[in-house]
Amino acid sequence: MVEKIRERGEPGVSGWKLVLAYDGTDFHGWQVQPDQVTIQGTLADAIERITGERVLPQGSGRTDAGVHALGQVASFAMAAAIPAANFHRALNRALPASIRVLEAASVAPDFHARHSAVGKRYEYRIFRGEICPPWISRYVYALNWPLDLDAMREAAAVVVGEHDFASFAASDPDLARRSAPNTISDSISDQGEGASTVRTIFSSRWDCVDSDLLVYRVHGSAFLHHMVRNLVGTFLDVGRGHIAATEMKRILEARSRTAAGATAPARGLWLISVEY
Amino acid sequence: MVEKIRERGEPGVSGWKLVLAYDGTDFHGWQVQPDQVTIQGTLADAIERITGERVLPQGSGRTDAGVHALGQVASFAMAAAIPAANFHRALNRALPASIRVLEAASVAPDFHARHSAVGKRYEYRIFRGEICPPWISRYVYALNWPLDLDAMREAAAVVVGEHDFASFAASDPDLARRSAPNTISDSISDQGEGASTVRTIFSSRWDCVDSDLLVYRVHGSAFLHHMVRNLVGTFLDVGRGHIAATEMKRILEARSRTAAGATAPARGLWLISVEY
Repeated sequence: MVEKIRERGEPGVSGWKLVLAYDGTDFHGWQVQPDQVTIQGTLADAIERITGERVLPQGSGRTDAGVHALGQVASFAMAAAIPAANFHRALNRALPASIRVLEAASVAPDFHARHSAVGKRYEYRIFRGEICPPWISRYVYALNWPLDLDAMREAAAVVVGEHDFASFAASDPDLARRSAPNTISDSISDQGEGASTVRTIFSSRWDCVDSDLLVYRVHGSAFLHHMVRNLVGTFLDVGRGHIAATEMKRILEARSRTAAGATAPARGLWLISVEY
Repeated sequence: MVEKIRERGEPGVSGWKLVLAYDGTDFHGWQVQPDQVTIQGTLADAIERITGERVLPQGSGRTDAGVHALGQVASFAMAAAIPAANFHRALNRALPASIRVLEAASVAPDFHARHSAVGKRYEYRIFRGEICPPWISRYVYALNWPLDLDAMREAAAVVVGEHDFASFAASDPDLARRSAPNTISDSISDQGEGASTVRTIFSSRWDCVDSDLLVYRVHGSAFLHHMVRNLVGTFLDVGRGHIAATEMKRILEARSRTAAGATAPARGLWLISVEY
């Protein structure tokens, strides 16, 4: 019994945009999966409990299990007529405390959280202290070995501009296949087999927020699946001296996942905001 | 096959003191219970994996399920000889990220985390904003209805000094019975049936940390089981106008749990430090 999902443009159907914050630790990522608790599924259930209508909110991009969001954006079309302020309050009552709706607005029917996005910001947070407090450990990668920050900054600067980021795309072909076109944005599978892996990065830098917190901040047009985690893993290999910063250009040009470093753990990654 | 637990004072056995921080959300409280994941049991397992020796660390007091600690203290006697710095590092490797050992020291054999304690500080944290961020919600009670802070401060001041706190002790007799003498400190059952419920509070006050965070800070010689949560629940009833601040004296004098207000949720309570 698959219920019909409303299409934008149907008569009596209006567009909705939600801005979401979540703690991804206890979810199997954004995307609906059978027998798994996901952000998308939990949100759809909450909307259905409030309106009686089944919708499938589209995210600006899929976040992996354990990845957090400060400003994920979701869109969907819905026939139910409900004032935005009431819908907003009802959603935060219906959702678990690990997902909060920061904004809820009715929008033009052609707004789409993924297709309409023109930019995105991510942060990757690294805890540098000796003992990571339990109330922080879900939200950072705790790593207190020595790092050459100058080398990491040099490497981070290399990726600014338009480049083919194939070396930093998810390498698992099963994963790419599972990422069906209508469920994932920041994926090479987004445009089907053989799609472009060229992306534009506007800024890419490492900031020492305080003595215990080192943050990688990246702003780009769009990102491939696992791209930020693969970039950070490679920058950390640079920081540890396993890869020279001067190698970054060669790694990009190799267009091969095996040329780059490891994938950094999900827990440190935050989707900060999406631009339209 | 119950293994023998070492006694302090046995030859070759030395005393140990640990200072612990933990996120209590995913634990069934401090105290070992069959088929439940507890802080005490998780700590005992970690010590056994490191030393091969089974000990039962005694806490300064039992914390309930969901209660957090910034500075819980545990003590135990152990025959294994291991330098404190190595033991400290090994414990943090063996424990889950939700429990951290902040300090590990060998101490005089007569040191006991509970019996040697002379004071304790707790905080109860209330989030006052409209939308509680997911990464804060595990650690606060989110409550954004209006509160009369002046009345709450007046009520909090009444409990300073030596008083019989029977009105604020856990009322569940089953709970009291389960709290066997050697496993719980801050309990009326600590000294057996009919034990004193008189305690001394050195300071008791409400602080506005910022516009979103209201914190109750209390410092006392010792606390009855549920005492801080019952005090906070009563102060919140005062803040909402359900109980007059001038009633606090009468509630204390009633020496009956039914005279006071509700028990505040565990998630907002933090054991800050223990004094020796």
